[in-house]
Amino acid sequence: MVEQDEEMKYLPSWNVPLTIWWDEKKKVVKLIDQTLLPDEVVVIECDNWRCIEEAISILRIRGAPALGVAGAYALALEAQRFEGDEEGFFKKMNEVNTISTTRPTAVNLRRAVDEVYKKLEENRGKGIEKLKEIALEKAEKIIEKGIETNKDIGKHGLEIFKKSRPKDGNTFKILTHCHAGSLATEGYGTVFGVIRTAIREGINLHVFVDETRPLLQGARITAWELKLENIPFTLITDNSAAWIIKKEEIDMVIVGADRIAANGDTANKIGTYSLSILAKEHKIPFYVAAPISTIDMETTCGEEIEIERRGHEEVVKFSNSIVNPFLGKDQVLNYAFDVTPHNNITGIITEAKIIHEPYKEAIAVL
Amino acid sequence: MVEQDEEMKYLPSWNVPLTIWWDEKKKVVKLIDQTLLPDEVVVIECDNWRCIEEAISILRIRGAPALGVAGAYALALEAQRFEGDEEGFFKKMNEVNTISTTRPTAVNLRRAVDEVYKKLEENRGKGIEKLKEIALEKAEKIIEKGIETNKDIGKHGLEIFKKSRPKDGNTFKILTHCHAGSLATEGYGTVFGVIRTAIREGINLHVFVDETRPLLQGARITAWELKLENIPFTLITDNSAAWIIKKEEIDMVIVGADRIAANGDTANKIGTYSLSILAKEHKIPFYVAAPISTIDMETTCGEEIEIERRGHEEVVKFSNSIVNPFLGKDQVLNYAFDVTPHNNITGIITEAKIIHEPYKEAIAVL
Repeated sequence: MVEQDEEMKYLPSWNVPLTIWWDEKKKVVKLIDQTLLPDEVVVIECDNWRCIEEAISILRIRGAPALGVAGAYALALEAQRFEGDEEGFFKKMNEVNTISTTRPTAVNLRRAVDEVYKKLEENRGKGIEKLKEIALEKAEKIIEKGIETNKDIGKHGLEIFKKSRPKDGNTFKILTHCHAGSLATEGYGTVFGVIRTAIREGINLHVFVDETRPLLQGARITAWELKLENIPFTLITDNSAAWIIKKEEIDMVIVGADRIAANGDTANKIGTYSLSILAKEHKIPFYVAAPISTIDMETTCGEEIEIERRGHEEVVKFSNSIVNPFLGKDQVLNYAFDVTPHNNITGIITEAKIIHEPYKEAIAVL
Repeated sequence: MVEQDEEMKYLPSWNVPLTIWWDEKKKVVKLIDQTLLPDEVVVIECDNWRCIEEAISILRIRGAPALGVAGAYALALEAQRFEGDEEGFFKKMNEVNTISTTRPTAVNLRRAVDEVYKKLEENRGKGIEKLKEIALEKAEKIIEKGIETNKDIGKHGLEIFKKSRPKDGNTFKILTHCHAGSLATEGYGTVFGVIRTAIREGINLHVFVDETRPLLQGARITAWELKLENIPFTLITDNSAAWIIKKEEIDMVIVGADRIAANGDTANKIGTYSLSILAKEHKIPFYVAAPISTIDMETTCGEEIEIERRGHEEVVKFSNSIVNPFLGKDQVLNYAFDVTPHNNITGIITEAKIIHEPYKEAIAVL
């Protein structure tokens, strides 16, 4: 079992770790290196923004809302380190802004960076010390608000259990993909928000976890976070989802989101689109749990979402094992995300309410 | 790149390795240890049937038709080693017969064992030396016939390329799952039979290969066999199949089979059922390539097929790396196969012809 680093930071009154936080004493950003979970819980200390950029790039930190926090902290961190005049300060902030291009699919990264930057712009002229304070306060506020948002997603999520009965009469069997827990968000989690709140309300749940190739976020991180709170779960390979839905009587699929277009089309971890088709085929509901900040009104539909393609080594290797030493980059295709069309989605669980088709109209008035 | 063991045996006039063969000089059965591919090509020598049984059990040899050959050779090998009278001989053969229970889903293992045993029964009374000869001859005949069958599957498979045009106007993009090549069969392959014959006929093909978790037969063995003959291919994760079908304009899915019921329901490697749903959703054909011997008339429909469940360690490990050290057997569900309902199958390519719905009628007159 995993040893918990005493340095880790937990959600108050929960055994739920946070993925990234500010260390006021050391004046550094600390983050859990998710690439090493669950073997090791290693906390990385970043004393400059390039360290955060690298962490984003190689997926030490991942999950759309968590990327937002990382981006915000990159600005806040460099603000604390800055010495000079305001002109130099904003020049530095503009340099750090480029962190939002590190990963293109999730909208939260760019959005959080923009939010912090805008706040600083609004306070231009108030002096460096004030700006430093504002940058850090804003980053902390993004986290606080995110956690509240996730708790509200959890509350609205209760509805999906109230309007149906589990197929086996007792326990709702939920299938999830990748990881949308505390470590993928500001804290508490989106899909995990729904799960955690339901369990606190006494609803019986069993979570089926897609391992989620190539980086196995399901097998590594989702399983770890479920285990921490003794939430019952079963790990499966991605390709067995259809058979498991049929044979194990899965009641519903719930996944997170990296970006939601104005029409409801949803980009999420590769494999999500497949699950939406399998849910439809087996006539079970397919839910997305995500904060409103994941919706990008500037993205009209899924086709406009840039889908990141990552290196072939993620597919031909795992940890220290090379599956296939003779495959080059031209022989592997590694899309990191896919897009689920809005008409495959039963409902999007947000902090305001659960929205349904027609999504375009529902999103416009959120 | 893989070093080819000089001990390997190839299909005459092809750069296509066989997976199992009889070494007359050493009086042993030799087989490629598929668990080590493509890192190492190791040839195992079995001088007793328990060695073959173990090879089947831990998947050193796999693939429905190849399992049939392994079972037949188990009897032939023990026949050669036998010393004693006919009563003792048949007692021994009955003991070896139990090898057919080593893996329950594929019908070919039991069938080939039964064929050799029946042939021996028919020749009861002709003396030990004659029975030894018959056992080995029969096993060799199963291989010869299998290879001819696969070549005929390839010939009939040409039809599927003739009745449509590739979406991109030039190259047929085929998606396959697991491995149904030479190493999974007596030689040449079933899905590979279709691919090899088409390429010899000048048809442009590009094969998209599902990696096929948990044991990665696609990433390891299919990729290796395609590479040996310079057939163009792209490796993908299983969960990206839906997105790849859509974005890369896949023309068709072709898979093998472990058992086909009398109504056409088809058991094959876990993940096949999922692909059949994804093919239907994207309106592309879904073909099964399999010899008639894979059809089990005693199995009325898919629900009667026993689906093997294998150990959790296959899922919590990835190649030699442990993904998740804290997961026990109760937290992992590892179905090795699934069943694709006949109405999801566009056609079953056999050595006699391609059959279509209604399969029950088509199979009855094969």
